Amino acid sequence: MSEATELDATVSSEPAIPVRDEEGHLNPDFIAAVEAAIEANDEAGLRTLAADLHEADTGDLLETLEAEDRGAFIRLLGEDFDYTALTEIDEAVRLQLLEHLPKEVIAEGLGDLDSDDAVYILEDLHEDDQAAILEELPYADRAQLQKALDYPEDSAGRRMQTEFIAVAQYWTVGQTIDYMREARDLPDSFYEIYVVDPAFKLLGSVHLDKILRTKRNEKVASVMEETRQAVLATEDQEEVARRFERYNLVSSAVVDENERLVGVLTVDDIVDVIQEEAEEDLRALAGVGDEEISDTVMTIAGSRLTWLVVNLGTAILASVVIALFENTIEAMVALAVLMPIVASMGGNAGTQTMTVAVRGIATQELSARNLVRVLNREILVSLLNGVALALLIGLTAWLWFDNIGLGIVIGGAIIINMLFAGLSGLLIPIVLDRMNVDPAIASSVFVTTVTDVIGFFAFLGIAALWFQLPL
Amino acid sequence: MSEATELDATVSSEPAIPVRDEEGHLNPDFIAAVEAAIEANDEAGLRTLAADLHEADTGDLLETLEAEDRGAFIRLLGEDFDYTALTEIDEAVRLQLLEHLPKEVIAEGLGDLDSDDAVYILEDLHEDDQAAILEELPYADRAQLQKALDYPEDSAGRRMQTEFIAVAQYWTVGQTIDYMREARDLPDSFYEIYVVDPAFKLLGSVHLDKILRTKRNEKVASVMEETRQAVLATEDQEEVARRFERYNLVSSAVVDENERLVGVLTVDDIVDVIQEEAEEDLRALAGVGDEEISDTVMTIAGSRLTWLVVNLGTAILASVVIALFENTIEAMVALAVLMPIVASMGGNAGTQTMTVAVRGIATQELSARNLVRVLNREILVSLLNGVALALLIGLTAWLWFDNIGLGIVIGGAIIINMLFAGLSGLLIPIVLDRMNVDPAIASSVFVTTVTDVIGFFAFLGIAALWFQLPL
Repeated sequence: MSEATELDATVSSEPAIPVRDEEGHLNPDFIAAVEAAIEANDEAGLRTLAADLHEADTGDLLETLEAEDRGAFIRLLGEDFDYTALTEIDEAVRLQLLEHLPKEVIAEGLGDLDSDDAVYILEDLHEDDQAAILEELPYADRAQLQKALDYPEDSAGRRMQTEFIAVAQYWTVGQTIDYMREARDLPDSFYEIYVVDPAFKLLGSVHLDKILRTKRNEKVASVMEETRQAVLATEDQEEVARRFERYNLVSSAVVDENERLVGVLTVDDIVDVIQEEAEEDLRALAGVGDEEISDTVMTIAGSRLTWLVVNLGTAILASVVIALFENTIEAMVALAVLMPIVASMGGNAGTQTMTVAVRGIATQELSARNLVRVLNREILVSLLNGVALALLIGLTAWLWFDNIGLGIVIGGAIIINMLFAGLSGLLIPIVLDRMNVDPAIASSVFVTTVTDVIGFFAFLGIAALWFQLPL
Repeated sequence: MSEATELDATVSSEPAIPVRDEEGHLNPDFIAAVEAAIEANDEAGLRTLAADLHEADTGDLLETLEAEDRGAFIRLLGEDFDYTALTEIDEAVRLQLLEHLPKEVIAEGLGDLDSDDAVYILEDLHEDDQAAILEELPYADRAQLQKALDYPEDSAGRRMQTEFIAVAQYWTVGQTIDYMREARDLPDSFYEIYVVDPAFKLLGSVHLDKILRTKRNEKVASVMEETRQAVLATEDQEEVARRFERYNLVSSAVVDENERLVGVLTVDDIVDVIQEEAEEDLRALAGVGDEEISDTVMTIAGSRLTWLVVNLGTAILASVVIALFENTIEAMVALAVLMPIVASMGGNAGTQTMTVAVRGIATQELSARNLVRVLNREILVSLLNGVALALLIGLTAWLWFDNIGLGIVIGGAIIINMLFAGLSGLLIPIVLDRMNVDPAIASSVFVTTVTDVIGFFAFLGIAALWFQLPL
């Protein structure tokens, strides 16, 4: 395979610098060359380097540049700057950039984009800025974008593109092909065409490969797939993503409440949603919001502090339980040494089960139908691992403190806590989901509370009984 | 929008039962109807219900059915069973099913599939079973599948389909369209065609919409996009997924080491890889392997126990630190009550930073270039939140134990531990990545060790100094 280079070799007479290194990171030499061109105000040089980049590479490059170089980069590239690149960068970087560009420049840049990309760039802006930019656009574009922006955030209507090809059902394949050869303002790329009735009600779709494989005189209606379930423009993007994923879709028509075709969703937009969804669960479970690598210190500190303070409640509750046994601990300090082991093992086991449960709920693999089976299995897994760990830890405690009773007490506490960990790890996410609370966000506080409280209480309580220590 | 129904209403005379409920789960009434048809050995009834299902619905249905009903379902559907459904179910369910089907039945079912689906079903089978099934296939199919199976696991070669359309560069668009109308054995669906030289070396690709928009007498070579960087058949699927995602690809050619076209990857296969990758990080951080909701108790218990035992090491290390301060605790039991708070706050903060770092590394947003900036920010965030939490916890401790010194000691320990949490949460994943260890799998043990050890040591150590307690 030839060396990776996104540069068109015919444009540059110098040997092209590869844009990315072997691991897929932007090549430091390439970044340095771009920075040098910006520094030197070298329009021609920058164009040679960056005018033909893929929008994704331009986006990564913009994120990598210092804040003050980003505006200069766009200014120097001028008409060669593809505004689609702004859909590829972090929100914080995008907002910072857009704030510093004149509204009419932005409007001109957006005018060339497919509607979904333009909406993506506009939607995070302040309403006043949105209005100011929209005003600079031609009426038809403005109306189209405004309509998309009127759909709820994260809905299919926001993500769809309004450029598509729709034909009448009595058209032939040949007519359709001829129409596409002549038509202007086609979408940048498309995978199927749609068949509509005179009122623009969606009847079905035909994949392009089907059109190419069919004789010219056949009617499109005879080769179309009837629409069984179109995406509603108001539908949430996560639901749409799940459908794309389940049915391996590449594109899907979007209809309004009257079943009229209003737009098209393509898989490249949905891929981002699918990835975000899995990543959201990961972040939620760890207590980090949707922070981006380019966010400021205050934004990040603030969003993380919330989670820490919530968890502080859990930690204090655990301390209150320990405080109940102050006299017990005073009589036998070894208990203080060993007690974190019980809580920590429970916490780890609870997190394991909870993670599986949260993802099972998100992917709909865990449902009312298999709950009993999964619950039984979880109890068995907890008991098995509880006994295994109890033996290991019990033996350790016995040998360490030369006290077989201590080994038995901690072993018993471990088994109890592992069982509660498994049960709470599975049931807490399910109950939260039933209550319409996102299980990924709220579960781990509750599960940790259970495993901490049960862990300390079981260990110190059993110890107090076994050794007849004061309470 | 009309009610969701995957059934073709013309097939059934009864009112069709919706396959899924509003939340996208399989409809219990539908499942019951299928189970009743299986119970009654009612071939015709089962066909009416399930013959026209999408493969994804059939897959979910198979997973939902009791193990003994699954084989009967396939037997009763006979030729109407689409083996593609087997690519949509958990590995454990698939293996259990394939074990009970005669080899020649499986071979016949696989014969109708695109090569990538057939490989997906075959690859997890035991080598003997693979060979037995392959033997039942016609020579051409067998050779094709065997070649794909010879590529490494999780490589592009395993995921690609070997059905594609390749034309010579001197062909016209018209010739190409005519060829597609006549050709047999085309892929089920495709999005671009490929242009090759006489040695089958890949030259470029043409999107179908481009072909449809171009006049018949134009040469394909004049509208093709030159291949800049094709996917190598031996390349890892995760790398390929990153490229699909970055460049919004819908399909990509796959070449062998001689740059010859050998197959095609489509986005629907890659969507699964993208989702798995984000989910893998989530599971790895929580210490659960690739367990599936259908796995057995022993499989799950075993895979989770490994992680728990590794974490036991961390917990014992923390206990050893506490043991150093046994006399200190005996002199002031309030320390035992409060010490878990310090460790737990550090653990939570460390997990936050670590999660962001692990995902930043996976998505290549965190790199050598912005490391210093991110590190500085992390230190500031840790100090800010450390001071905020120190005030809150210090005040709580002071009021609770009526001892201002205790408030100051715990506040100081919190600040120290938060700082170490931020540093280790960021640096440990980076160091592991440099050492080619998957940071998602190994980071959390190390980070927890740091926050536990530093947490207990700082709190008990400062307390011993401040109150001049015995060690």
